[in-house]
Amino acid sequence: MQKKMDLSYAVVGTGAIGGYFGAKLAKAGKRVHFLLHSDYAYVKEHGLRIRSVRGSFHLPKVLAYDKSEDMPPVDVVLVGLKTTNNALLSTILPPLLHEKTVVIAIQNGIGVEEDLAKEFPSVSIAGGLAFIASNKLGPGEVLHQDLGRLSIAYHGEGDLSILEQVCSDFTMADVSARLDSDLASARWHKLLWNIPYNGLSVALNATTDVLMECSSSRSLVKDLMEEVRLASLACGVQRPLTEEDIEKMLVMTSNMPPYAPSMKLDYDYKRPMEIVYMYKRPVEIAQSFGYKMSKTEALGQMLEFLEAKHV
Amino acid sequence: MQKKMDLSYAVVGTGAIGGYFGAKLAKAGKRVHFLLHSDYAYVKEHGLRIRSVRGSFHLPKVLAYDKSEDMPPVDVVLVGLKTTNNALLSTILPPLLHEKTVVIAIQNGIGVEEDLAKEFPSVSIAGGLAFIASNKLGPGEVLHQDLGRLSIAYHGEGDLSILEQVCSDFTMADVSARLDSDLASARWHKLLWNIPYNGLSVALNATTDVLMECSSSRSLVKDLMEEVRLASLACGVQRPLTEEDIEKMLVMTSNMPPYAPSMKLDYDYKRPMEIVYMYKRPVEIAQSFGYKMSKTEALGQMLEFLEAKHV
Repeated sequence: MQKKMDLSYAVVGTGAIGGYFGAKLAKAGKRVHFLLHSDYAYVKEHGLRIRSVRGSFHLPKVLAYDKSEDMPPVDVVLVGLKTTNNALLSTILPPLLHEKTVVIAIQNGIGVEEDLAKEFPSVSIAGGLAFIASNKLGPGEVLHQDLGRLSIAYHGEGDLSILEQVCSDFTMADVSARLDSDLASARWHKLLWNIPYNGLSVALNATTDVLMECSSSRSLVKDLMEEVRLASLACGVQRPLTEEDIEKMLVMTSNMPPYAPSMKLDYDYKRPMEIVYMYKRPVEIAQSFGYKMSKTEALGQMLEFLEAKHV
Repeated sequence: MQKKMDLSYAVVGTGAIGGYFGAKLAKAGKRVHFLLHSDYAYVKEHGLRIRSVRGSFHLPKVLAYDKSEDMPPVDVVLVGLKTTNNALLSTILPPLLHEKTVVIAIQNGIGVEEDLAKEFPSVSIAGGLAFIASNKLGPGEVLHQDLGRLSIAYHGEGDLSILEQVCSDFTMADVSARLDSDLASARWHKLLWNIPYNGLSVALNATTDVLMECSSSRSLVKDLMEEVRLASLACGVQRPLTEEDIEKMLVMTSNMPPYAPSMKLDYDYKRPMEIVYMYKRPVEIAQSFGYKMSKTEALGQMLEFLEAKHV
């Protein structure tokens, strides 16, 4: 590894994900610029507050902005937006970029980095997989309930020393972060949980415990996981999912306390759901490799209907 | 055709279907014995009342029974029960049977005749496909809103002259009835409508017009129909469904007034849903011929969950 770099950061989307990871870096002394929208005035005055199982803290003063034009170019952009807001990135990102900026999409689903790379072909794009249970409690306030790991991988080529430094910065900031060599593997692994539980929690109006209790929904969960596994195989990722991964995930979820996945919260609060990158793109990508994720597609179609009617 | 037979009838399940078809036969002068459950006392005293687009009528006096032991053996048994009550047939049917009795299951789904034939191996079993919009309004009262055709076909072998006479009796009674030579074809053709609209109306809490308006649900409806078409092909029925059948069904349903399928009424009134013969059996039968109805199966799994939780 090269000599230590003092990376500067921007957080785009300072919510449950961006707010938590950005605040941890800022608390550890990193220079972090936070872009905010509805919380801007509050955070400008009161800073960020993290209530966390790993120790709560308050950052009374943060670098808060309400438009990216006012922000400096940074070395690393952490995108914590919901993917439903990704259209905004066309205008948000340009002021934040210098020649070697790395944009890390800490988002759900699959295909986000591909779309970003198409729009910003000269920028290094990476994906961040967050394994964390966190929620926004109110303006500038995040509740971190469980986990908190981060996996980072480049979409295509990129300067590994920068991502290594990012992981090192996170580790210093008490966040377990690791560099992954295959983004596609990581994305499909995360979809193994997201595809069954997010969609079914909305379509069946049920938390994870209820979905696991009833034999019919549990077998549907398993069938959806099997589709994700076969899709990862069809796509030829470096580490395709295994039947053991499915068994582990089922046991892990059965042992979790009752949990409402983010898509259920989005639906219940009438926010847009992340259907495109969590359902449509996985189905399209698998299809392009000749595998049909039929049940996943059906669930996505139902979610689209529910969103259209949920006004 | 042989000389005219004066067939005697029993109706098991005097509701929206059995009540309508039985009353039409009785009005035309046929001897029809009605088995009733909750409506017995009312119908015994007040008879049956049909409010119909083809002419309303009242039968003040009908042959009403509250147990099949009191009924005579008949030539033809019309089963109008919901398939969710089919377990009752083991005890209901025996007193109604003589050597040549034909049992016609005017029921939804696929596989009912197979199960009856297994239980009553020496009895002639037929299926009846009712194309009708009718509802029970109250005790002994049926509202007939639209259509009213009947297709009848033997499960396996049977005396064709009897079913020909049944069709002739219905025709005399102002019900369009025809003899079909392939029950499996008829059952899959009916499933083309039942599988998408019944299940989705429950899972998405929507009437047919709403399902057809939204592009996501409409494409899911079409995908489910495509699975039914491919299943009918895989099963090698005499008249497999065609893409044209699908197009016609979509147009027909789009042109219908807003309609709540029977399964939605069952769900809304917390009655058991016909999941077994409408979802599980079609999936199993297609699977036994090597075709996987994935979206149909997913919808069935969701319906089972919804039924289990809907207490």
